[in-house]
Amino acid sequence: MTQVRLDMFVSLDGYSSTTDQTPDNPMGEDWGRLTAAFGATRTFRKNVLGDTSGAGTTGLDDAHAASHSEGIGAEIMGATMFGLHAFPDDPDWKGWWGDEPPFGTPVYVLTHTAPRPPIEMAGGTTFHFRSAAIEDVLAEATEAAGGLDVRVGGGLGTARAFLQAGLVDRLHLMIAPIMLGRGTRLWDDLPSLDATHKVTTEVADSGTIHVTFTR
Amino acid sequence: MTQVRLDMFVSLDGYSSTTDQTPDNPMGEDWGRLTAAFGATRTFRKNVLGDTSGAGTTGLDDAHAASHSEGIGAEIMGATMFGLHAFPDDPDWKGWWGDEPPFGTPVYVLTHTAPRPPIEMAGGTTFHFRSAAIEDVLAEATEAAGGLDVRVGGGLGTARAFLQAGLVDRLHLMIAPIMLGRGTRLWDDLPSLDATHKVTTEVADSGTIHVTFTR
Repeated sequence: MTQVRLDMFVSLDGYSSTTDQTPDNPMGEDWGRLTAAFGATRTFRKNVLGDTSGAGTTGLDDAHAASHSEGIGAEIMGATMFGLHAFPDDPDWKGWWGDEPPFGTPVYVLTHTAPRPPIEMAGGTTFHFRSAAIEDVLAEATEAAGGLDVRVGGGLGTARAFLQAGLVDRLHLMIAPIMLGRGTRLWDDLPSLDATHKVTTEVADSGTIHVTFTR
Repeated sequence: MTQVRLDMFVSLDGYSSTTDQTPDNPMGEDWGRLTAAFGATRTFRKNVLGDTSGAGTTGLDDAHAASHSEGIGAEIMGATMFGLHAFPDDPDWKGWWGDEPPFGTPVYVLTHTAPRPPIEMAGGTTFHFRSAAIEDVLAEATEAAGGLDVRVGGGLGTARAFLQAGLVDRLHLMIAPIMLGRGTRLWDDLPSLDATHKVTTEVADSGTIHVTFTR
């Protein structure tokens, strides 16, 4: 049966997205710290950076990085994560994800703006733009996934909307052993997932705490 | 050299003290959930409940529970944790901790009210009441500890004051794998301890995440 899956980064002090971006440093410094252990894994280096040398960490961080992409049949993300409004004057803009995005599945981009035609990319990714309720978009993505899982990709607003609606079957948190002191919080006003899900905690060699909620 | 030590309970969603107390349930339900793994340890059962049967969990939770009391020469706590204002009309009130409190050391109780004489209890505990700055009380407690460590016992307000002043050498967090959704937050406006302290993360069989900051 299709599961709805969500993987998120969190700092010890509870921040899941960062707010220190500047024009000179568009990612900011905090995001790199928050995701460092994931970015160091062999799987990330291979799948996202194209590094086939076998370099990168193995162990628990890498096992979770590998499972992140296994068995996904469709993806849902927010407009900002796609980059929908990043370059409004460029009619050829196709989002942040390059000519061959790393999804390889239908990707449903949530937007409140006017419908637009889908964009088919190399590598099996097709972006669909939807302004429907998240439950309806999820139903469509589930159908498209053909029995595989649906991944909620982010960003934080989209993730929190799915969590608040009780739609996530498997939530995997990577808690970095760092304090950010700024950013946007994950935990505010979430339902008590531990009442509906089983909670598993693990620690990787990097010090990253992996918390998995499953139902 | 004397270290200033602090042990705290935290929920996954960042609450370190609970707010669901009622006259009928003066501890509330949340506190029991937050401290369940600690309360189940063999050390807690023996040292606090007087259970000499050997019952209780062992392993990582118990190792941390045992180290909690090792090498402590003096304690500092807030007025509420002592119970200073709980029964203002009872001149014989000597706090929440019973005739033989589990400290066995000088205990410095922080208060903004008028100075009062110390209270000597059975078992080596003497309560001293101080309205000085926390740095001055710490200096006095350090002197009294005679080379052993000083423990900041709590509650959360006192703990946060010591953390914000950068006075804690060893902070041990027991993160329960639960969401409380209410309470008082640990993490707001704390200095970035990971910049000054080494961070260690571990997981116990109970699922409790132990995070230790040392410098």
